[in-house]
Amino acid sequence: MLRLSTDKPDFEAKFARLVNDRRESVSDVASTVADILARVRARGDEAVAEYTARFDKYTLADDGDWRITATQCRDAYDALEPALRDALELAAARIRAYHEDQLPKDRDFTDAAGVRLGARWGAVDAAGLYVPGGRASYPSSLLMNAIPAKVAGVRRLVVTTPTPKGESNPLVLAAAHVAGVDEIWRIGGAQAIAALAYGTKQIAPVDVITGPGNDYVAEAKRQLFGVVGIDMVAGPSEILVIADGQNDPDWIAADLLSQAEHDPAAQSILITDDARFGEQVEDRVDVQCSMLSTEKSARASWDKHGVIIVVKDLAEAPALANRLAAEHVELAVDDPEPLFNQLRHAGSVFLGRHTPEAIGDYVAGPNHVLPTGRRARFSSGLSVLDFMKRTSFIQMDPQSLATIGPAAIALAQAEGLPAHAKSVELRLS
Amino acid sequence: MLRLSTDKPDFEAKFARLVNDRRESVSDVASTVADILARVRARGDEAVAEYTARFDKYTLADDGDWRITATQCRDAYDALEPALRDALELAAARIRAYHEDQLPKDRDFTDAAGVRLGARWGAVDAAGLYVPGGRASYPSSLLMNAIPAKVAGVRRLVVTTPTPKGESNPLVLAAAHVAGVDEIWRIGGAQAIAALAYGTKQIAPVDVITGPGNDYVAEAKRQLFGVVGIDMVAGPSEILVIADGQNDPDWIAADLLSQAEHDPAAQSILITDDARFGEQVEDRVDVQCSMLSTEKSARASWDKHGVIIVVKDLAEAPALANRLAAEHVELAVDDPEPLFNQLRHAGSVFLGRHTPEAIGDYVAGPNHVLPTGRRARFSSGLSVLDFMKRTSFIQMDPQSLATIGPAAIALAQAEGLPAHAKSVELRLS
Repeated sequence: MLRLSTDKPDFEAKFARLVNDRRESVSDVASTVADILARVRARGDEAVAEYTARFDKYTLADDGDWRITATQCRDAYDALEPALRDALELAAARIRAYHEDQLPKDRDFTDAAGVRLGARWGAVDAAGLYVPGGRASYPSSLLMNAIPAKVAGVRRLVVTTPTPKGESNPLVLAAAHVAGVDEIWRIGGAQAIAALAYGTKQIAPVDVITGPGNDYVAEAKRQLFGVVGIDMVAGPSEILVIADGQNDPDWIAADLLSQAEHDPAAQSILITDDARFGEQVEDRVDVQCSMLSTEKSARASWDKHGVIIVVKDLAEAPALANRLAAEHVELAVDDPEPLFNQLRHAGSVFLGRHTPEAIGDYVAGPNHVLPTGRRARFSSGLSVLDFMKRTSFIQMDPQSLATIGPAAIALAQAEGLPAHAKSVELRLS
Repeated sequence: MLRLSTDKPDFEAKFARLVNDRRESVSDVASTVADILARVRARGDEAVAEYTARFDKYTLADDGDWRITATQCRDAYDALEPALRDALELAAARIRAYHEDQLPKDRDFTDAAGVRLGARWGAVDAAGLYVPGGRASYPSSLLMNAIPAKVAGVRRLVVTTPTPKGESNPLVLAAAHVAGVDEIWRIGGAQAIAALAYGTKQIAPVDVITGPGNDYVAEAKRQLFGVVGIDMVAGPSEILVIADGQNDPDWIAADLLSQAEHDPAAQSILITDDARFGEQVEDRVDVQCSMLSTEKSARASWDKHGVIIVVKDLAEAPALANRLAAEHVELAVDDPEPLFNQLRHAGSVFLGRHTPEAIGDYVAGPNHVLPTGRRARFSSGLSVLDFMKRTSFIQMDPQSLATIGPAAIALAQAEGLPAHAKSVELRLS
């Protein structure tokens, strides 16, 4: 755990190192992935089945074994204890409502020159969602990816998920039932991404692929960027808590640990203007940590990547936060608005003392798929826009073409593109 | 030139081949580019200067030679003939107006459970625009990239452009003056993209990189996706004209040639319900072609990639157009609305007989940077959104947390994330 203080002379050097620290794995899987993609593209289902037997120890037979059926998903849903079923439904309803409000509006207007202009939004035809197997197979992630796609209007929503030795997570199947997923394929890794992007005999291709995955999955998505649309590359999770000394140290410790428990590479940072409060939080992190079933990840993350920064005044915090551009930022103060107004780079912000980050992971409504690794400088959380695209349009009549056409002719000629000029000239004469 | 007719039995096979035809170069530059990126990252300006000397035959000395100054841009603007200056200003004003109307609205509301939710949009701090040297150095492209960035609110807008043997295009400099570009660096290729993404001693890093380039530039952007934001990978230009027999064949021929003249790999497709009109257009393409200074590109493109598809009824056209998902679609009929309403995948649509595609390249207002290679299925033209990002936010109070907190606890426990559950529990007790 790193302790920094803005009044120390070495602060800037140490903070700059923190900002530039990349906690991402640097495993070089590019050529392995390129090979998998090429083989699936060339040999389709046959290659997918071979990789699945090798990596997931699961045999995809010619009949039904490739898919998890809608009936299996409904059965998983029906078997849930009622409280959990209700929680899933509440989460889905709130996520749906937030994302429905996000739908963009079409534009259609005629300007002063008499030119009709506008843009129409539409959904992609088909989207693929990757759901990891094992520990990182979260029903909440399925909801957060699937619901925006459905709200956007995607007609065909396909999930791929590895089922090592045939095992799948019943909670994920229940979530797929709630979200209205159309197809689930028992495949994972780069071979699943290739099958979604190129299509196989059995699996029709999709237009957009989203969802978290391991290094192979992330690299496959990166290599297929342009063949399909993809969401932002995701790295380890992060939280930045900006807190004054009036908080309960236990609350803030739990918030820091809620990121740390995800992954040893996760990062939790506290900025406070109260050095003594910082020490109390540090103590409570240690005590709470030992009570967690996720202690191993949590402690590894906190020991290696945890940071407490003491500032003279919380007014210093937004400038530091903007450089960190963290995935999650909590503003644990009575009046968070002045700090919030100065935050320019953050994935999602949690305002006030009663808004733990975890509420956003599950039930608040906004998406929990957010930019990590300082990518909040230039990218946004997942939204309906990731499953939509815009078509612009233009309509001229002879008058409006006479008004602005000559300028187009002048520019086309200057750029050395005579057919461009001619296509306007002919209509003006 | 390929002639197809929907009433021929082999139509579907031939059309499917057309849809799947990738006209992109498949040059393998990945490892060369990876090497350039690594060297620029490690050695900064020194490596950039070496590559520039080698590839552009231009020596970047230690003083001023690295940059084109604002004064040089203003001088280039002042030296333009007045008609061209006016054309550039008209284009800029119309592009600015269209993109200003595109600015997204923030959201901030409190829902029935008493939870405050919303999202705020903001611009990235810095954007880099790549402007190719030589033939493809278009002032219109500079306007189409730079103006959305400025409208989005980008504070620092940086252009890189190679100046082989020191030569630059005065029209591009004039356009940079009109658009308000902040810095122009005389560098190009993958080394310029690396300098923009990683930063060097002289060149501060940017957050987003857009703009067209050769294979090296495109591959560099792809490899740096995630380090910075990038726009969609661009391929050769395309036009699909859907026209009845009531058009002047010369107009439609000019429209087809306005794409063909860009690049031998460009593609122009006509769909018509009038076979005789199709033949007339074919004749006029041939005649007009021989009058163009761009004849070589135009003829190569039309001969190799041009297509005329005769349909029994134009009502067949939208389904074909949706499979082609072309960059530009013209609907050259009296009432384009019914066809337009059935188009789901297109970059930009030009409605009616008096809207040549070229008007959209220069002065209409919508962006001319559009998805190619069937990417209109999942991506959109460049917009202010490419230079902005969204921060979601959540604010709870004790009551609203009591309402939805228990569901978050249930889901966190089910996912095996006890610190997530704890951070909510502590605040409820």
